[in-house]
Amino acid sequence: MTPFSTMATSMHRLVESLQESFCIALESEDSSQFKEDIWHRKEGGGGKTRIIENGSIIEKGGVNTSAVYGHLSGLSLDMFKTMLSKQNIPFQHMNNAQFFATGISVVIHPFNPFIPTVHANYRYFELISENHHHWWFGGGADMTPFYLFEEDASHFHAIHKEACDALNPSYYPLFKSHCDDYFYLPHRNETRGIGGIFYDYQRSESQDHYFDLASSCGNAFINAYLPIIQRRKTHTFTPSQKQWQSIRRGRYAEFNLSLDRGTLFGLKTGGRTESILMSLPPKVEWRYDYSPRPKTPESKLIEILKSPRSWV
Amino acid sequence: MTPFSTMATSMHRLVESLQESFCIALESEDSSQFKEDIWHRKEGGGGKTRIIENGSIIEKGGVNTSAVYGHLSGLSLDMFKTMLSKQNIPFQHMNNAQFFATGISVVIHPFNPFIPTVHANYRYFELISENHHHWWFGGGADMTPFYLFEEDASHFHAIHKEACDALNPSYYPLFKSHCDDYFYLPHRNETRGIGGIFYDYQRSESQDHYFDLASSCGNAFINAYLPIIQRRKTHTFTPSQKQWQSIRRGRYAEFNLSLDRGTLFGLKTGGRTESILMSLPPKVEWRYDYSPRPKTPESKLIEILKSPRSWV
Repeated sequence: MTPFSTMATSMHRLVESLQESFCIALESEDSSQFKEDIWHRKEGGGGKTRIIENGSIIEKGGVNTSAVYGHLSGLSLDMFKTMLSKQNIPFQHMNNAQFFATGISVVIHPFNPFIPTVHANYRYFELISENHHHWWFGGGADMTPFYLFEEDASHFHAIHKEACDALNPSYYPLFKSHCDDYFYLPHRNETRGIGGIFYDYQRSESQDHYFDLASSCGNAFINAYLPIIQRRKTHTFTPSQKQWQSIRRGRYAEFNLSLDRGTLFGLKTGGRTESILMSLPPKVEWRYDYSPRPKTPESKLIEILKSPRSWV
Repeated sequence: MTPFSTMATSMHRLVESLQESFCIALESEDSSQFKEDIWHRKEGGGGKTRIIENGSIIEKGGVNTSAVYGHLSGLSLDMFKTMLSKQNIPFQHMNNAQFFATGISVVIHPFNPFIPTVHANYRYFELISENHHHWWFGGGADMTPFYLFEEDASHFHAIHKEACDALNPSYYPLFKSHCDDYFYLPHRNETRGIGGIFYDYQRSESQDHYFDLASSCGNAFINAYLPIIQRRKTHTFTPSQKQWQSIRRGRYAEFNLSLDRGTLFGLKTGGRTESILMSLPPKVEWRYDYSPRPKTPESKLIEILKSPRSWV
């Protein structure tokens, strides 16, 4: 019998159902099929990794779920301790603790540079020891355009605002601001994209409340993104616009490899490398000290990334 | 008057003279010119960044030097404290400490996938407070082939062994093994390349001894690498061999962005981003779960990276 709460099962079901609906919607738009890899973790649990490469619209994309559990030890123990102490979550006797984690991670890198890259993640953690039982929720969705269409940014934010408002009208402004703070590259003085929503360590309301939040935001994802694909997919582009996309994808790789907590935590604690690094863009360029000419669409994007603005 | 030892000046001169000789040798081979950017750091010091992009042989390469100094504060203070405590270097009262750091960093990404990528770095640190004066040396050179030519790997190692042997015959085996340990990607269970030499926190002998080591190894670099360029530069290659290079360059970016201490330290402490990230390859591909067919030259490379061997 599992020591974890029934929420562990409920959230795992939710992320698998989101995975199913995301894949169906994206497949129908792309007219290609996700390839599925089911993997098992020897210490407990496993996941379903679904990937499209070289689709008609998606150059590379993944819709992954996992549910893993086991005893905390070594690096994962150290990392949980550091993480929790920063959140003022008291956790003594963690040496014998068991953890459960489930989530969905989506990253879509479209071929057309006028369609933004998109990312979403909804997750749930539990930590149990003899006398303690901690749980928390995290999640969010954010968009990384290569060319800025204000109506796309506004649409993506508006749909996510609506999903947050359904739970609590104070959430969207808070999560929007957390998103700008989190997806920020200090060494570039730029945000990764035009943001969206981001929340983590949520535990002050009931489990059901945060389950509903994940469900509401998760179910908003396709409505937030698909219309943008549909609007931009027929936009023709030049090799130099495609190159601009490759250079900007370099920033995406910089963020994910050097700053993203989830990526680093996953890699350091022995997560499945290929599932974690599916988030990396298919083709990337790094040029020395590149910046676009002033007053171009490319330089307009950079301005926005240097000073995040309100989109709704 | 500077509070630092005369070694600070001597090492800065050494790395600038190495920079000069590397650039002359590489320019004559490539028939193109390094572009130089001289930068200044508002808190003290600066550097010379020299870059070739789209040369005849070098697709992207940098030969950079810097000499920076100032008071430790904020992140750099925290990072030095953590770093030194791991090395059992006692350093009280660091809040008022001043630091000096100088070094040369070289990364060459050739266009031809039969010429290996190469990296070298020689550096010197000083930390001074009222009652303490600490210094240490670090350095090394390593090679990352996309196709393995055993004679190239042996040559690169033999030249560096000779340079180390001139100071102490115990160095090469030690530094070779440190190099295999350091340039290792745990999440891939692979080394970055076929290694070379790596040393850090060297301070048990005299300053002059380690200066001579840096000089000996630094001056060996061109002899270690140029003959390999000359042997491989006329080797023709196919688009799929070029693609294999792009995929392997992805591992290089993974190492530098998520594991390399120098890169992360530099980015986090406000180093000059473009000079630090010149190390990133010009064009990179990430494909999901890619592995080469068995019994190909590509799979032979992977085998070597999974179990480092002796080359001399």
